[in-house]
Amino acid sequence: MSGLLAHAWFGGLFADPDCADILSPAAELARYRKIEAAWSMAQADIGTADPAICEQAAKHIMTCQIEDAILRAGVVQDGVPIPAFVRALKSNAPNPIKDVLHSGLTSQDVMDTALILSLGPVFDLFRMRLEALRGGLTRLAEQNESRSLMGYTRMQAALPITVDVRIATWLRPLGDYITKLDQIAGQMKVLQWGGPVGLRYHERAGDLGPAFAARLGVRDPGHAWHTTRADIAELGSFIARLTGTLGKMGQDVAMMAPRGPDDIALNSGGSSSAMPHKQNPILAELLVTIAQYAAQQATILNVAMCMNRSDQALHGC
Amino acid sequence: MSGLLAHAWFGGLFADPDCADILSPAAELARYRKIEAAWSMAQADIGTADPAICEQAAKHIMTCQIEDAILRAGVVQDGVPIPAFVRALKSNAPNPIKDVLHSGLTSQDVMDTALILSLGPVFDLFRMRLEALRGGLTRLAEQNESRSLMGYTRMQAALPITVDVRIATWLRPLGDYITKLDQIAGQMKVLQWGGPVGLRYHERAGDLGPAFAARLGVRDPGHAWHTTRADIAELGSFIARLTGTLGKMGQDVAMMAPRGPDDIALNSGGSSSAMPHKQNPILAELLVTIAQYAAQQATILNVAMCMNRSDQALHGC
Amino acid sequence: MSGLLAHAWFGGLFADPDCADILSPAAELARYRKIEAAWSMAQADIGTADPAICEQAAKHIMTCQIEDAILRAGVVQDGVPIPAFVRALKSNAPNPIKDVLHSGLTSQDVMDTALILSLGPVFDLFRMRLEALRGGLTRLAEQNESRSLMGYTRMQAALPITVDVRIATWLRPLGDYITKLDQIAGQMKVLQWGGPVGLRYHERAGDLGPAFAARLGVRDPGHAWHTTRADIAELGSFIARLTGTLGKMGQDVAMMAPRGPDDIALNSGGSSSAMPHKQNPILAELLVTIAQYAAQQATILNVAMCMNRSDQALHGC
Amino acid sequence: MSGLLAHAWFGGLFADPDCADILSPAAELARYRKIEAAWSMAQADIGTADPAICEQAAKHIMTCQIEDAILRAGVVQDGVPIPAFVRALKSNAPNPIKDVLHSGLTSQDVMDTALILSLGPVFDLFRMRLEALRGGLTRLAEQNESRSLMGYTRMQAALPITVDVRIATWLRPLGDYITKLDQIAGQMKVLQWGGPVGLRYHERAGDLGPAFAARLGVRDPGHAWHTTRADIAELGSFIARLTGTLGKMGQDVAMMAPRGPDDIALNSGGSSSAMPHKQNPILAELLVTIAQYAAQQATILNVAMCMNRSDQALHGC
Repeated sequence: MSGLLAHAWFGGLFADPDCADILSPAAELARYRKIEAAWSMAQADIGTADPAICEQAAKHIMTCQIEDAILRAGVVQDGVPIPAFVRALKSNAPNPIKDVLHSGLTSQDVMDTALILSLGPVFDLFRMRLEALRGGLTRLAEQNESRSLMGYTRMQAALPITVDVRIATWLRPLGDYITKLDQIAGQMKVLQWGGPVGLRYHERAGDLGPAFAARLGVRDPGHAWHTTRADIAELGSFIARLTGTLGKMGQDVAMMAPRGPDDIALNSGGSSSAMPHKQNPILAELLVTIAQYAAQQATILNVAMCMNRSDQALHGC
Repeated sequence: MSGLLAHAWFGGLFADPDCADILSPAAELARYRKIEAAWSMAQADIGTADPAICEQAAKHIMTCQIEDAILRAGVVQDGVPIPAFVRALKSNAPNPIKDVLHSGLTSQDVMDTALILSLGPVFDLFRMRLEALRGGLTRLAEQNESRSLMGYTRMQAALPITVDVRIATWLRPLGDYITKLDQIAGQMKVLQWGGPVGLRYHERAGDLGPAFAARLGVRDPGHAWHTTRADIAELGSFIARLTGTLGKMGQDVAMMAPRGPDDIALNSGGSSSAMPHKQNPILAELLVTIAQYAAQQATILNVAMCMNRSDQALHGC
Repeated sequence: MSGLLAHAWFGGLFADPDCADILSPAAELARYRKIEAAWSMAQADIGTADPAICEQAAKHIMTCQIEDAILRAGVVQDGVPIPAFVRALKSNAPNPIKDVLHSGLTSQDVMDTALILSLGPVFDLFRMRLEALRGGLTRLAEQNESRSLMGYTRMQAALPITVDVRIATWLRPLGDYITKLDQIAGQMKVLQWGGPVGLRYHERAGDLGPAFAARLGVRDPGHAWHTTRADIAELGSFIARLTGTLGKMGQDVAMMAPRGPDDIALNSGGSSSAMPHKQNPILAELLVTIAQYAAQQATILNVAMCMNRSDQALHGC
Repeated sequence: MSGLLAHAWFGGLFADPDCADILSPAAELARYRKIEAAWSMAQADIGTADPAICEQAAKHIMTCQIEDAILRAGVVQDGVPIPAFVRALKSNAPNPIKDVLHSGLTSQDVMDTALILSLGPVFDLFRMRLEALRGGLTRLAEQNESRSLMGYTRMQAALPITVDVRIATWLRPLGDYITKLDQIAGQMKVLQWGGPVGLRYHERAGDLGPAFAARLGVRDPGHAWHTTRADIAELGSFIARLTGTLGKMGQDVAMMAPRGPDDIALNSGGSSSAMPHKQNPILAELLVTIAQYAAQQATILNVAMCMNRSDQALHGC
């Protein structure tokens, strides 16, 4: 399908409106503005530019009209929207503002920091959902604690167990994922700033970085990390594992479903156009599908780690 | 990004409007109609149903109003849109029509045959583009036949060659891809029909299959192939290789670009927000990116070959 | 495991002694000798070197003692064994022989042509096995033609079928694989020869290529293909699909096994250290494992297509 | 290649003798013995078996002769060596010993716990190597602190930097990897014990688990984790990222090498059979190759997460 997430029908099954909002073009543009404005103000904060001009610049950045069409054309031309975004910002800015606008930043500084800012609410969303799943499974286990269920080994009936034993194997990893999510969220709340010539060659980098980071509510690592994509790859692998664990639940449910209500009853089961009595465990199968999909997407991030082309001046090869 | 192909900005770089049209929901719905109508008419063709009723049914199928919202809800419920599509067709059909509608088909018969029908124009598009690329490179080689160019081995300057020698290494594989594309297009122009009980148990399968296939302009293989996804996986691997070869061109161009106009001059090069003199080989790099992406997506099809869950009655496990 | 194929225990399950023989260091060294000897003789064939010297060279190449330790050290030093192999050939050769030895070849010419020569017997082996499997399944289907078996759809019992209907879905793709194997075997029976300066700059390339190829029993394509790895990637994807289809059989058998002898009885089933009555479908599960493994290995070949670094002089970037 | 790690020539480039020792059959067998002996002794520790018999059993386990051929045949039969290993242990054991041998363990308990025991020294090895690399790069940076080097951006010469700036981008991630390695080493030092009927149904599980774990120097998690492969998949992704970061160094070096000694001089460079003056950055390229390889192997672990077949009785589906 061309764009399954945006597909008129299949989007219903695959799209995630909450994530889509966070990652929408409108929200992304707002992040670019926030970053460029923070950059202007940081220069005022450390006294390298006139605070009045910096405030004017920040105001201009936040309110200047920028059309999607300009950014789309910019992406086609430059691969990323930032050069077009900056040209648009500058095109109708008075001269003193132009001088503080983006000067000392690169496109990749803005892109990577915007990625970082977008991940905050994504992590919040994931945490909320993981907690909800944990709560739901815990309740389900409590409600069915003593209910008997056939235990299987390699799909062969073994001995009866109780429902809570089965659910415990689903429940157990969730806490670890929440802990790990918090850890990744912490390590990824970090400014990317290298500038066109590298921090080593920027006289006030030691003051400007922290001021810039503080304005954005992120940590200043004291160095550029754009050539080190390990954190991004780690996030991808984390998501692959998380969907793998959810996919295992889906696989278990899909195995239980055909055994009928003694094993499991599904709230919603897919119907068949030819055999109306069939109950297809659509959502359970979807979990497996998503896990398979996520595993390969995570691989792209690992593969890309040593192919990174976007090295900036004075660091790159 | 959530849905890069449909993204307001990045869609400019990644989307393929021609492919998107072929795979659009509207075009897909038209294929479902075409298949169900062909099915009705095929029953008339072999004399198992009243031709007048079959024609009425076909007309109803082709004209009956069906909302995207119904199909979206159907996908959420059933995983595929066909059950909702058939329910919609039947809901306002007079009784004699209802009896010939979809009866003897499964959702997967319709889904897989619709996939087949969609691939025809995709293959035409690919062939046209490959021919255009071959023509363009041939002209470029002719125009620069005797122009000198430094030859490299492992990125070390070796001996001067001529431009056409370099281009020949790009040009050579294209003919093979066109040949292979035609072969895959041929082997994938084939009806999927198994029905809910399998062809073995359908009295007139030997007549109905060919009649159904003829109505759709595809070949009748005489058996269901829905549990054998090898052709689909082969197409995925073909696309991965094709993008790999194009990615190699991109990689070569990206290596030549920084050496300047003695090596290559780009029609369009990306600009930098920080270093206006830089010329970034955006489109060349995009070819590498697409190749890396396609390689992992093709893997999903290979991985799925032995996980196929959608086995139909009387065949499946 | 470190080297599962060579593992003292697990090799029993994973190793393929027939393939291992074809790809053994001894057989590979014999191919290097054969190629270098053919190269010498081809020069005699087209009259660019003294036939007596060429024959002497060929004899020297075929009989000269070469230790594994030298080739191992050569690989560590050069990444490939050919430079060490050629040094060894030359070290104790009289002067006139030295001049015809390897001169006009590159390491990659020898490596890639040796790969081609190794694939012939591998393809023969695969064909023989596929034919044997097809024969075995055909007999099994005939012997159990009218035997009843429960048909399933999405793991839910549907209607009884007969055993041959189930087997037919396994049998059907095998013929296609044999046809495709023959096609790939044909397209890969081809000389790699570019030489250090490219064929365009070799005066007698038009005669030497065919003579060289004829000596090796392969086709002369008239150009170097070392920068185009499409055929190698296609072979990888073919193997991934083939193992995928076999993995689907394995998956089906693994689903049938726990249903007991009414569904399937296994010749050999794994035992359990804790539950002696369990029958684990080890070999069926192994087919799934191999399919999953092969799918990811094939991806490496696709990914590598646009990363190829080993471009030779006068062609490469 | 059939078993590249064990290949007579290519093993020189790809094999890791230190890792191979840790993962050798002999070392693995020693781990099985250690686990079974610890199991016997743990029963004595909590008083559920006669200490004298347990000690006798442990002694028998540690000294009983077991041939590779038996374990190889066992793997072919059962998929894993444990059933054959246990049969061999029992075959010549006196009766009272037989009763405490393995009783209450499953094959997977032993396999997974042995994996855990093998990882300890692997982690130690990795840590030592990472520290050595960090030390080496630190010294290299210090020795060349003020040495000038051209900075590049997207392979275009930009401004001169100093050598330590370049090395700093290689050095920086290493500390993170060491920290993460320690964390993974900690979370994977954990007993797998579920037994054939699950801990819930084992009267003394609460005492036996800690005693068993203590004997092995690992942590008792209080539950079986064999159906949750997240930690193993995380280790695979960690290795993929680590090799990705090392591959990025390799890629950088491979880009610098052809620019000559002003950029970098290699201790060892591969020679060419055709062009003796070429210096091929073999080891740098090898780092990229290993990264590409590791990325796809890690994917297998992610893909397998929701395909896990080896569920044990009373937990599994």
